Amino acid sequence: MTYCVGLLVDTGLVMLSDSRTNAGVDQINTFRKMKTFHNPGERALVLMSAGNLGITQAVVNLLETPEEPGEPTPLMSASNLFNAARVVGDGLRSIYQRDALDLKEHGYDFNGTFILAGQIKGEEPRLFHIYSAGNFIEASIETPYFQIGESKYGKPIIDRVITRSSSLAQAAKCALVSMDSTMRSNLSVGPPLDLAIIKRDELKVTAHLSIDNDNKYFQMIHEMWGFALQEVFSELPNPEWTVL
Amino acid sequence: MTYCVGLLVDTGLVMLSDSRTNAGVDQINTFRKMKTFHNPGERALVLMSAGNLGITQAVVNLLETPEEPGEPTPLMSASNLFNAARVVGDGLRSIYQRDALDLKEHGYDFNGTFILAGQIKGEEPRLFHIYSAGNFIEASIETPYFQIGESKYGKPIIDRVITRSSSLAQAAKCALVSMDSTMRSNLSVGPPLDLAIIKRDELKVTAHLSIDNDNKYFQMIHEMWGFALQEVFSELPNPEWTVL
Repeated sequence: MTYCVGLLVDTGLVMLSDSRTNAGVDQINTFRKMKTFHNPGERALVLMSAGNLGITQAVVNLLETPEEPGEPTPLMSASNLFNAARVVGDGLRSIYQRDALDLKEHGYDFNGTFILAGQIKGEEPRLFHIYSAGNFIEASIETPYFQIGESKYGKPIIDRVITRSSSLAQAAKCALVSMDSTMRSNLSVGPPLDLAIIKRDELKVTAHLSIDNDNKYFQMIHEMWGFALQEVFSELPNPEWTVL
Repeated sequence: MTYCVGLLVDTGLVMLSDSRTNAGVDQINTFRKMKTFHNPGERALVLMSAGNLGITQAVVNLLETPEEPGEPTPLMSASNLFNAARVVGDGLRSIYQRDALDLKEHGYDFNGTFILAGQIKGEEPRLFHIYSAGNFIEASIETPYFQIGESKYGKPIIDRVITRSSSLAQAAKCALVSMDSTMRSNLSVGPPLDLAIIKRDELKVTAHLSIDNDNKYFQMIHEMWGFALQEVFSELPNPEWTVL
């Protein structure tokens, strides 16, 4: 499984992905699900993937291959982020044409989804969710985040605390709390984590951290969040139904 | 959709179910998903259902019908709770034989699951999860609860706060917090809620409450839990990475 989340706030973008893959519980591996594409001062893009690893790796390979030798790769030459999302969608459609029938023959659905986040000079920071069919949606003021993969365990906390006016630090903290809840409930989501931050108008990947279980900040989140939830729960009044 | 949760603690059982059903977003209805079967002083059983309503209602109808007129219904005559769970499983298998092929013909999977909770004289309180195939599992010391339907949003809080030594009041509070998180994230889970409590060794349904959005205690849970989560989140230290 996989869990990736991308958050768009007024001051920039936060992206977080796990790195566990599994084909059954007896075949667990580590593959990074985050790729960066950047040309400092001009564009900074972060791509995260979920679904069938064979499909998503094939798409990423297309995105890293120029049409003609020496030319820029398609994500590096897209004129804006909407077109960059189309490039990813077109990549999915190419791989669908190539692989979908064979996958179906072996009983597999065609399942590959992406989150594309970034900023290209002349535009605002933008965030897209690209579906297996190659179509996509863009984040809005009301819904400033996207999740792919195992999204449900870590969704309630994002819904409760994140808005577009949250700070980058709050967004990063929230992404880590959301990931912690997901890792606790689904063993097939696991470290190391990739965390990338793109500050608005810096046009570079401001930070790209690899976070393992021994990362002090993540350890603190893990311990304090669980402890605080238990505290808050015990402070909520019990029901006073006379039968209890 | 549906969300039902049953919790087994040392002092008894707590069961909570929503009542929303949907066949597409334009066909939302209210159907109770909890049934009680009790003979005070001898047995008290609570059955909750999720999945295809046509399937689960057909199973419940079987469970409410005596084999011969005048005889007790099968759940009322089962000699212990394991056998009562078998009765529910056998009911699922009967309806599978009758309906599964026609459902498949129309593109529907056979999907119906139950939680059966209760106590029969001479036994401890017990909790079972019965699958569509008619087989089932029983709750244990380590896993003292079962969920059916939309289970993921409301799972992390149960994992963090409930053990077998929790009180019935804590278990009821936790079930309502778990339901509140689920209703917030999935519009197809909704009120009125059915909450049933079986105190250990009382051999009756100690309480059976219908909880709507205007229930004062549930309103308090809804407001205070959301507020407290935001407080706790804001009190967690932000990351101090120098880039932020």
